[in-house]
Amino acid sequence: SRSIDLAVIPGDGIGQEVVAQGLKVLSAVLPQDVKLETKEFDFGARRYRATGETLTDADLEALKQHDAILLGAIGDPSVPSGVLERGFLLKLRFAFDHHVNLRPSKLLPGVATPLAGQPEIDFVVVREGTEGPYTGNGGTIRKGTPHEVATEVSVNTAFGVERVVRDAFARAQARPRKKLTLVHKNNVLTFAGHLWTNTFNKVAEEFPEVTTDYIHVDAATIYLVTDPARFDVIVTDNLFGDIITDLAAAVSGGIGVAASGNINPSGEFPSMFEPVHGSAPDIAGQGKADPSATVLSVALLLRHLGYEAEAARIEDAVSADLAERGTTTRTTEEIGDALAARVSG
Amino acid sequence: SRSIDLAVIPGDGIGQEVVAQGLKVLSAVLPQDVKLETKEFDFGARRYRATGETLTDADLEALKQHDAILLGAIGDPSVPSGVLERGFLLKLRFAFDHHVNLRPSKLLPGVATPLAGQPEIDFVVVREGTEGPYTGNGGTIRKGTPHEVATEVSVNTAFGVERVVRDAFARAQARPRKKLTLVHKNNVLTFAGHLWTNTFNKVAEEFPEVTTDYIHVDAATIYLVTDPARFDVIVTDNLFGDIITDLAAAVSGGIGVAASGNINPSGEFPSMFEPVHGSAPDIAGQGKADPSATVLSVALLLRHLGYEAEAARIEDAVSADLAERGTTTRTTEEIGDALAARVSG
Ligand SMILES: CC(C)[C@H](C(=O)O)[C@@H](O)C(=O)O
Ligand SMILES: CC(C)[C@H](C(=O)O)[C@@H](O)C(=O)O
Repeated sequence: SRSIDLAVIPGDGIGQEVVAQGLKVLSAVLPQDVKLETKEFDFGARRYRATGETLTDADLEALKQHDAILLGAIGDPSVPSGVLERGFLLKLRFAFDHHVNLRPSKLLPGVATPLAGQPEIDFVVVREGTEGPYTGNGGTIRKGTPHEVATEVSVNTAFGVERVVRDAFARAQARPRKKLTLVHKNNVLTFAGHLWTNTFNKVAEEFPEVTTDYIHVDAATIYLVTDPARFDVIVTDNLFGDIITDLAAAVSGGIGVAASGNINPSGEFPSMFEPVHGSAPDIAGQGKADPSATVLSVALLLRHLGYEAEAARIEDAVSADLAERGTTTRTTEEIGDALAARVSG
Repeated sequence: SRSIDLAVIPGDGIGQEVVAQGLKVLSAVLPQDVKLETKEFDFGARRYRATGETLTDADLEALKQHDAILLGAIGDPSVPSGVLERGFLLKLRFAFDHHVNLRPSKLLPGVATPLAGQPEIDFVVVREGTEGPYTGNGGTIRKGTPHEVATEVSVNTAFGVERVVRDAFARAQARPRKKLTLVHKNNVLTFAGHLWTNTFNKVAEEFPEVTTDYIHVDAATIYLVTDPARFDVIVTDNLFGDIITDLAAAVSGGIGVAASGNINPSGEFPSMFEPVHGSAPDIAGQGKADPSATVLSVALLLRHLGYEAEAARIEDAVSADLAERGTTTRTTEEIGDALAARVSG
């Protein structure tokens, strides 16, 4: 019989509330014969304040035992900026080699967008997750003096770029439009740009059916608001991916419905799924958070583990729920209940 | 009697056409007693193809003799990506220490925006122009092999950050709303982020009337499409500024009307003014390009040289022209003529 052994990290702020609904929908969608086991981990601001720890070797060892990880949100104003981001979120992505950061953007019917004319939006960003300016390379000299110099080093390897570019080509190949856009800034960042562009062109030869193009990251932000329909699959660097996926989420219904996967395609380490939104401390504990992004992250998790039908059922449920939502205000739990009812129905 | 001695670089593609209109409007707006001298420089793709040169020491010496520089656009598909960008545009910004890259965004009445509901947009981005990931620091080893490593180094100095932050505070102080937002990614790029954030907070003490806030660059892209009215003055790093000003241009009427100044505030070197758009080779020579962005860049140039009344007259003319434009299609020259008539009228 089948089973899913899930590590659950509710985290900070609204993390607790939205993860509870994600798990509710997960239980509801799974067939009887699939045994679901979950183990909750108390990571985030509370633990950091109590112990000074963010993510220890023992924590990583414990997480590694699970099939996948569901995360709510990490971050709290009580913790200095960067501590939990570098010490937990990025540490986990790097330790578990989550090099494919998958962020789909789809404007669902009935969902509000800040763009005029309700454009067609249905693309996926494949963001590199373990290189670029995110490696923590760099440093500071003469800190706090008028002669301070601070550097940040973007590190890009043929190995790291090629594997994510190949993953993106395979995803483009599997979609009806079969189109892949490389987003970079190769006219200015010429060293990294050359590696990305050359690798992209080389791998393209293995995927003759995939149409390719290239645009600079600055121009990409223009297209995301003037012609988002031009995108099918985008592959890009870690930092550019961070920036354009927030914009992509904004134009396709907001971060309330944006899901993401931090994927280790080889399966050597568990992959992690999380909503794009943060811990939103201002609305935490009030039942106001929309759990849809977490529920959609559960769908990505299921797809990753091979439960395609269940993933699709969740996506259809969220889509239907959003289409019928109108202007009613429901609590986090009410939305979770409605989605659970739809997927089991 | 007063005089303006201008270096003019029409450049590539539509550069020629739009600069001609910019100069026409400049001549029309200037009072009789101001003597305008212009010297044209043939830089860009044509010269690079003919001589292999982009910008020599002698060129810089010649440009240095002028009060200011007006540039159309540089770039052509016949030249490999990066050659003219690094070899001309960035070389000039660095050689003339253009550390204040000024990019105003104002949604004028009657101008189309991709955003629903015609929001109020009126802010200025002060983008650092001589540091960050634009310095060309970095390199490649094992190029073209499966073991290639390419790095890009973002260099940030207290000197470089403080002067641009101080410039931005002064600009915020001079505006009615007196609000300054720092945009960075200090939770991930912690070395540079610390320098930027600390410098910002330190300089803030000298400007007690200015309201300040901080947002991450990824979140900034969300606000630019969901709530652009929240911004008054933004100060940011070279690369983040590149990205968010293209988005800012897109939401506030498109790059057809986006002007910019590459400013050396000390006056040690001439400042350069240019439209944000590129050379648009696909429409070059067809009289289709909108010269408004160049004309607005001329306004920034005049303001920089102390001709505030003339700058305002140009801005009012462009604003009135756009408001009355409707759906008529006019040529580049017709728009230039209309603007020249308005400013002299
Ligand atoms: C919180 C932060 C470290 C993170 C990132 O920059 O990757 C977030 O913005 C994201 O996009 O997942
Ligand atoms: C052409 C390129 C070098 C330039 C930049 O990246 O600064 C352009 O995008 C700009 O914004 O002026």
